[in-house]
Amino acid sequence: LEARYGDIAAMNEAWGNVFWSQEYRSFEEIDLPNLTVTEPNPSHVLDFYRFSSDQVIGFNRQQTEIIRKYAPGRDIIHNFMGFFFDFDHFALAEDLDAVGWDSYPIGFLDVAPFPASDKERYLRQGHPDIAAFHHDLYRACGRGRWQVLEQQPGAVNWAPHNPAPLAGMVRLWSLEAFAHGGEAVNYFRWRQAPFAQEQMHAGLERPNGAAAPGIAEARETATDLKALALDKDSGGKARVALLFSYEANWLFEAQPQGAEWSYPALVFEWYAGLRRLGLDIDIISPSAPLGGYALILVPSLPIVDEGFIERLRETKAPVLFGPRSGSKTLSLSIPEALAPGLLQTLLPLNVIRSESFPDFYRVKGTLNNAPVEGRAWLDHVETDLAPLARSDEGGLLYRNNNILYLTTVPEPLFLGGLLFSLAEEAGLAPVFLPEDLRRRRRGDTEFVFNYGPESNEILENVAPEDASFILGERQLPPAGVAAWKRNTKSH
Amino acid sequence: LEARYGDIAAMNEAWGNVFWSQEYRSFEEIDLPNLTVTEPNPSHVLDFYRFSSDQVIGFNRQQTEIIRKYAPGRDIIHNFMGFFFDFDHFALAEDLDAVGWDSYPIGFLDVAPFPASDKERYLRQGHPDIAAFHHDLYRACGRGRWQVLEQQPGAVNWAPHNPAPLAGMVRLWSLEAFAHGGEAVNYFRWRQAPFAQEQMHAGLERPNGAAAPGIAEARETATDLKALALDKDSGGKARVALLFSYEANWLFEAQPQGAEWSYPALVFEWYAGLRRLGLDIDIISPSAPLGGYALILVPSLPIVDEGFIERLRETKAPVLFGPRSGSKTLSLSIPEALAPGLLQTLLPLNVIRSESFPDFYRVKGTLNNAPVEGRAWLDHVETDLAPLARSDEGGLLYRNNNILYLTTVPEPLFLGGLLFSLAEEAGLAPVFLPEDLRRRRRGDTEFVFNYGPESNEILENVAPEDASFILGERQLPPAGVAAWKRNTKSH
Amino acid sequence: LEARYGDIAAMNEAWGNVFWSQEYRSFEEIDLPNLTVTEPNPSHVLDFYRFSSDQVIGFNRQQTEIIRKYAPGRDIIHNFMGFFFDFDHFALAEDLDAVGWDSYPIGFLDVAPFPASDKERYLRQGHPDIAAFHHDLYRACGRGRWQVLEQQPGAVNWAPHNPAPLAGMVRLWSLEAFAHGGEAVNYFRWRQAPFAQEQMHAGLERPNGAAAPGIAEARETATDLKALALDKDSGGKARVALLFSYEANWLFEAQPQGAEWSYPALVFEWYAGLRRLGLDIDIISPSAPLGGYALILVPSLPIVDEGFIERLRETKAPVLFGPRSGSKTLSLSIPEALAPGLLQTLLPLNVIRSESFPDFYRVKGTLNNAPVEGRAWLDHVETDLAPLARSDEGGLLYRNNNILYLTTVPEPLFLGGLLFSLAEEAGLAPVFLPEDLRRRRRGDTEFVFNYGPESNEILENVAPEDASFILGERQLPPAGVAAWKRNTKSH
Repeated sequence: LEARYGDIAAMNEAWGNVFWSQEYRSFEEIDLPNLTVTEPNPSHVLDFYRFSSDQVIGFNRQQTEIIRKYAPGRDIIHNFMGFFFDFDHFALAEDLDAVGWDSYPIGFLDVAPFPASDKERYLRQGHPDIAAFHHDLYRACGRGRWQVLEQQPGAVNWAPHNPAPLAGMVRLWSLEAFAHGGEAVNYFRWRQAPFAQEQMHAGLERPNGAAAPGIAEARETATDLKALALDKDSGGKARVALLFSYEANWLFEAQPQGAEWSYPALVFEWYAGLRRLGLDIDIISPSAPLGGYALILVPSLPIVDEGFIERLRETKAPVLFGPRSGSKTLSLSIPEALAPGLLQTLLPLNVIRSESFPDFYRVKGTLNNAPVEGRAWLDHVETDLAPLARSDEGGLLYRNNNILYLTTVPEPLFLGGLLFSLAEEAGLAPVFLPEDLRRRRRGDTEFVFNYGPESNEILENVAPEDASFILGERQLPPAGVAAWKRNTKSH
Repeated sequence: LEARYGDIAAMNEAWGNVFWSQEYRSFEEIDLPNLTVTEPNPSHVLDFYRFSSDQVIGFNRQQTEIIRKYAPGRDIIHNFMGFFFDFDHFALAEDLDAVGWDSYPIGFLDVAPFPASDKERYLRQGHPDIAAFHHDLYRACGRGRWQVLEQQPGAVNWAPHNPAPLAGMVRLWSLEAFAHGGEAVNYFRWRQAPFAQEQMHAGLERPNGAAAPGIAEARETATDLKALALDKDSGGKARVALLFSYEANWLFEAQPQGAEWSYPALVFEWYAGLRRLGLDIDIISPSAPLGGYALILVPSLPIVDEGFIERLRETKAPVLFGPRSGSKTLSLSIPEALAPGLLQTLLPLNVIRSESFPDFYRVKGTLNNAPVEGRAWLDHVETDLAPLARSDEGGLLYRNNNILYLTTVPEPLFLGGLLFSLAEEAGLAPVFLPEDLRRRRRGDTEFVFNYGPESNEILENVAPEDASFILGERQLPPAGVAAWKRNTKSH
Repeated sequence: LEARYGDIAAMNEAWGNVFWSQEYRSFEEIDLPNLTVTEPNPSHVLDFYRFSSDQVIGFNRQQTEIIRKYAPGRDIIHNFMGFFFDFDHFALAEDLDAVGWDSYPIGFLDVAPFPASDKERYLRQGHPDIAAFHHDLYRACGRGRWQVLEQQPGAVNWAPHNPAPLAGMVRLWSLEAFAHGGEAVNYFRWRQAPFAQEQMHAGLERPNGAAAPGIAEARETATDLKALALDKDSGGKARVALLFSYEANWLFEAQPQGAEWSYPALVFEWYAGLRRLGLDIDIISPSAPLGGYALILVPSLPIVDEGFIERLRETKAPVLFGPRSGSKTLSLSIPEALAPGLLQTLLPLNVIRSESFPDFYRVKGTLNNAPVEGRAWLDHVETDLAPLARSDEGGLLYRNNNILYLTTVPEPLFLGGLLFSLAEEAGLAPVFLPEDLRRRRRGDTEFVFNYGPESNEILENVAPEDASFILGERQLPPAGVAAWKRNTKSH
């Protein structure tokens, strides 16, 4: 904190410690922001998250420096986890040569707050977007270089329930990783250990060394890879950018203001919404360049700085912001100009008050005469802009040139329609994929994956009529994968 | 405890410490009644509540004595909270000149265990009886002198969900406080702070000093008050008394005997039941005089003393007791004569056993051939009295002269019908108000409030046909308030 | 641990401590298996349960040795509890002359995870199989000598909800205990105490010494017993054995692998399934002889030793094993031969992987063309045996000679049909009793109990047409008990 603020008066000012008479006299007086009599100052919590992240990054840097010194010339990689946001992975990965992560699609579905219908439909497959989301996030962290360090090869031991993957899913998961540009897929583990904590965690081999079901699928994947002859590089830059901020997550953890507000769920929903349209997605950090993207999505970005505004000015692509964007200063205060703060230079509106809602409540409005619904949050704005979507409670969607702003968390149908029309505007040829299918392109290879428990036909507008299938065919069975080479100019 | 019991033998006897061989040898051996191997002695818990309350009262007295000494001639007021019963507010308020409280109708609805239908219907209004209940409770504590020290002026920050009030509710809440005899309504806060813990708590002004929605309603309330020209005093004594005992709450916390038993919920239901009949209510302490009341309600009073019996003898008004009344001695034992203990001198019946029930269970019976239902509790009695309401499991309602006793917690329809007929018997001209309307009289001014999300017409038997409305009109919009002067002799 | 393993290397090997580099250098380094950074080694947990059980048994032995020395010639009895499995009651009871237990059917129903429909139907009776299960379990522990040391005589104080027993239930519970071979039924308590923690616990007398409802039923039971003239002994050995292992419960607590896996619930369901067929049941320990039983049920037995296999070889009776049987070594590892381990000598199949499922999932299959369902668990096997029941996911039931193996937890209809056909095969003349009726035989006396809230006729195939009823009659009211002498050769 001393490094950040210089003197205690500046920190007291930044945190607003005058409130509740909580001014500190020196940095020595500052404790952890827990075990407080009532809630801690949210600015304190946010700065603790920043400090804690820096500690992790610093420790990793120490390790990599030692390795580089005593074992030069090697790539350094480390494993990241699923739905884990407690340190800034973009920043830490700068000290790595590549990023790895541990992909457990079935366990993640069980422990994450997905609706019961998803937990039932994808019981043995995992949610169709969980692995993909992390592939794209860690591809960004690794600056294109990444791999799966632990791929679930069967039932595991650590989730509340541990079903085995549907036959074919180990291969499907593996190919999905390569479709997203992965350099390798490693399975955890080679042989199931017969003892200790993880003895019920499947391996490619059973505890006695006999083949377990996963190994045949791993071998089939190897054969597939030879047939596919994928480009060496990670498949190139996508045309859609989805902005993800670790800092935003910490800030909202420190000040949710509504029990139903979840930043990770919000970002994941937007990611899934884009993927349902058959689009390839780059997940980007708040400091990433915006050039080259045809469509930019910002589910929420509470802290907006001048650099971000500069990068925004340079894009002509549609940029869709979700609620609470620009609502906070760097030290988690309300900006002098009120929300959306610095964004007002591009989006002339003013959030004069905000509401949060319980689960049962929906903000009901219309967009082009069709009903739309929002939930969890509503920003009330003053503006001269006419809302594109409106409700009796106020405008739901505003636009100024290429900048759009949602005042509520859009429900799936609202979100899907909006993303579709923006993708069309951006010339991205979106399609509404069937519920269980997902598409991913790497270089000139196009993949379609079937995550559903039933057969699914690949739609005409997904695979061209004359597609020459390298893997699979037009009618995809459960856990089926199709791949063909495409004319990259046709899309 | 030494002050209360004199010697350790008397305390051992009072608490029944011989049970489980828990006799103490000296007062020094007594710990707090927590962190015990199994449940603590309930008499110990009750005495701890008494001690803890006395400590709060003693500390407040110290403060008031200092203020009176060094700043004489001023009224001393302090803020109480909503649904907070851990000390005896009647006793503490004796050292204050007036009582204040902090009214957050929307947040209280969210955190209190109201049914989902209420949470949905009153999302932006708060439950119609929450503020009124506390107005009447703290009016009693303040011996008629009270005010709202913190009135919610918009969305707040501390509840799990924080919707903004429906337009008009800030004015409605303010006028409801004055209708109940409040001396003032203060808003928390003047200007929203842009920093620290409560930065998302609305003020009358936005963080930048611009007007927030609440301020116009506060100004309108001021105009209304001039038009109303209310009596200076707090509106006089009501004709209905509802007895509330802090000690009863502590006793039932110490010994609930059924997970569905909630003393605060019971009292609140009876309060709401009376208010649905358009009645003004005095909440009274167990030591209050009963003279002058036409109807007296005692949802439950486990400890009954001789003084209370004396005051009971002096009233001819119907007095309705709920279950568990008279069931305990001062030290939380079962009276020698069994429940209802001293009440047996006025009500010749004997509770020979009691049952508690889960949520799904209803005691089904009849009253005047109409079906009635109870829940949560059933006292089985031996008596020569014929029950007025009965079930296959035993009598549900008994009466001896003006004293009535319910053996179960009456469900709303049972309770409403019973309160209506007792109010009629007492000459109080009850009405069944529409679900969302509430009525309150102060002096010669009669108010009707619409807490519902829809328009509501005021019934003919609520506002006379020739009523000359000072505020509002017969058809009340959501958050609407009507007021007129009435001929006080007509009711 | 030193006594068990001799040296630390053997313990490290047995627990697989090499995993996660958790080898200990000496026994002094070993802590309790709690407060660990992540999950403890399950072998450590299991050995802690064993140690903890041994400590309880050792302490009890100390006490009994003192009593036998200074008060020789007396029977020593101690009370056990309901649904309490933390020490090995079979082993402890070897130091007692007889076993007692505390039977609170209504409270147990409230606190145990029974479905809501059972909690509602049996609110004032308790579940029909709770008391019977413990009677049979503790009869086995006491080697035939047992009694009820505390019988609930009315409403109690310790459950979340405390309804009073339906009229007649105190007598029914008492007679059910005698029907199961109990030597005595004692009521807790004689007189309700008016003070301290249990003042709301009913006695046979009210706090003031007057008769409470239970005492008349206790007296009626005494009269019944004279009329019944039961055999002195505990009623003889049953023809059906249900194996219960305390160690199995500890093992599954240490490694549930699925949140829906509950060993006590599994055993209880099989017990209830047998009882619904009107069968008398012996609960046996894993070390009990199997001779003389016509049908043997093993809901699950993860650790199987050579002695058990030897005893199995000596029986021709059908033996039904549930999933996870034989799946672990003595030190909670996976056997070299994989599950079902040593059982493979009698049952040639191999569990190659296992799955656990959430509550909503059912494994759907067929048995003799009829639909059957399993839940919670599925073992996938390799075998040359043809499955008797199968699903798309694999075989559900296998049989080799008299040994049967279920790969899933059978749902009630699957279980009921399977138990019925095995009981018929064993010549046990099972019947499908009406939902609320239960039957128990002691010597030549046959009892039928009605646990339902409605009247029930005793079926013709339960009581013979010429039955001469000592208690009750063919049409049983709620809480009714019928008893008659039977021709023991006819069954």
